[in-house]
Amino acid sequence: MKGKQQSDRLTAQQKAADGVIGIFDEDAQRHDEEVHDASIVTMERLKKEFPMLTFRYRSELSKQEINEALQRIDKRLGQTLFVPNAKIKPDGGIIEVKDDYGRWRIVVVSEAKYQGKDIENIKAGRLVGKRNDQILMAAGNAIERAHKNICEIANFMLIEPYFPYILFLEGSNFLTQDITIMRPDGSTYIIAYNDGTLNRLDRLTAANYGMPINTNLCENRSVSGNGLNIMLQAASIYTQGAGEHWGSEDMIEIMLDIARTPLRMISKDLFQQLTKTGYHII
Amino acid sequence: MKGKQQSDRLTAQQKAADGVIGIFDEDAQRHDEEVHDASIVTMERLKKEFPMLTFRYRSELSKQEINEALQRIDKRLGQTLFVPNAKIKPDGGIIEVKDDYGRWRIVVVSEAKYQGKDIENIKAGRLVGKRNDQILMAAGNAIERAHKNICEIANFMLIEPYFPYILFLEGSNFLTQDITIMRPDGSTYIIAYNDGTLNRLDRLTAANYGMPINTNLCENRSVSGNGLNIMLQAASIYTQGAGEHWGSEDMIEIMLDIARTPLRMISKDLFQQLTKTGYHII
Repeated sequence: MKGKQQSDRLTAQQKAADGVIGIFDEDAQRHDEEVHDASIVTMERLKKEFPMLTFRYRSELSKQEINEALQRIDKRLGQTLFVPNAKIKPDGGIIEVKDDYGRWRIVVVSEAKYQGKDIENIKAGRLVGKRNDQILMAAGNAIERAHKNICEIANFMLIEPYFPYILFLEGSNFLTQDITIMRPDGSTYIIAYNDGTLNRLDRLTAANYGMPINTNLCENRSVSGNGLNIMLQAASIYTQGAGEHWGSEDMIEIMLDIARTPLRMISKDLFQQLTKTGYHII
Repeated sequence: MKGKQQSDRLTAQQKAADGVIGIFDEDAQRHDEEVHDASIVTMERLKKEFPMLTFRYRSELSKQEINEALQRIDKRLGQTLFVPNAKIKPDGGIIEVKDDYGRWRIVVVSEAKYQGKDIENIKAGRLVGKRNDQILMAAGNAIERAHKNICEIANFMLIEPYFPYILFLEGSNFLTQDITIMRPDGSTYIIAYNDGTLNRLDRLTAANYGMPINTNLCENRSVSGNGLNIMLQAASIYTQGAGEHWGSEDMIEIMLDIARTPLRMISKDLFQQLTKTGYHII
């Protein structure tokens, strides 16, 4: 039930910062651009690695398209649309490949989320909290919004046997190991990765059914029980567990690793292109 | 990539409001209590309607329990836990029934979300925005967080044939029809339900695959395609489409309607209790 105060905060913040752009801080904007740029480079590398295939990049997917994909599966689905031009815009965009039937198939979707600046604060010797007397800042829960786009893309790809969704996490709310930070005065502070005040990884692991993070989960798993066979669409969640910054090359390597999975899995739908004269499959 | 500014906002807000409780406003708190109270009453009514069954209410579910449920289905799942006492707390809590084998099975989970106070603002003749010269306030996106708990409960119930999750929506961001509001000076203003500045229903419909809202979707649908048979777990989303407030009785009626679905669907696991001497099935 935090919708209302969120709206209140936005109001105050927008007034204070003289417009909507003010709610973004520079680090977050830089981060957005980085994953976008890494995604563009990934597509260029895919074009070189698979010159016989045709790729495209796009930054958004409309709810209308998602609805149409759902309707093709079952007429009961994808019926609602309240704002005609509603769309989703994953930070890193969407890379697609054209199959032998002219259909665009998603090979990578990426998002990058930054939350928690305790490392920077401690490094700078800054105290936080209402009286500026705390070392750590209690983490927020905005990261939970990440589930929305995961869910949208999962629906769009409901009957694909793979789910190439990458979440790149960074910041003190996503640590997987204790880290020691030196203050300006030379003293050190150890951040415990499993401190409930900070760690927000558990808010995301529903998106991969509690399977390991930092792992390519692109190929869908099936599980069974109660006479049902259930296909899981799991996001591949990668975190900078030691509090580092995501470098572009690391993101690109992961994106390429994920992207190759669907290419292999739908290769029967790419067969004509893969076997075209003049090219070799690498 | 809005995690960081969210944390910045929280910092400022917590300082301003002298502590974490300050980020909740009174309406939101009242609303939380209302859905909680409606849920408690629902359980009492279920006890009366089905006196041969045993129900319980709980306000939270630990990630550890969710992990254990996933592990019982498949050892690859439910492996990660970063903060040992991580848990989820749906606003309205969780009602469960004890089956013939002593297992507690969920019959209702509810959350209530309030977002958008344009109706109140217009009624009061208040302008909004940074220069206090706008009629409507651009809606926030905090509502997207609702997907997290939906996903958690869906995982916990992965092999159940039903998904009894209710989302009660209220506020000017969730209208389904145009509404006319009278200002203090007697003039009127019409809010268009499909105004992209306000309407946030499309941010939620991924949770029900775009199936109709205000509908009991508790019984899982199956769809097929690409040789796969896929079971859908769809949240039942109910909104006050004309901008009204959710009354307790209306919420209770919906909760009862949802709760009866699992009781029927798992009745083979309740058979001994349902046929115990001295009771009749209603």
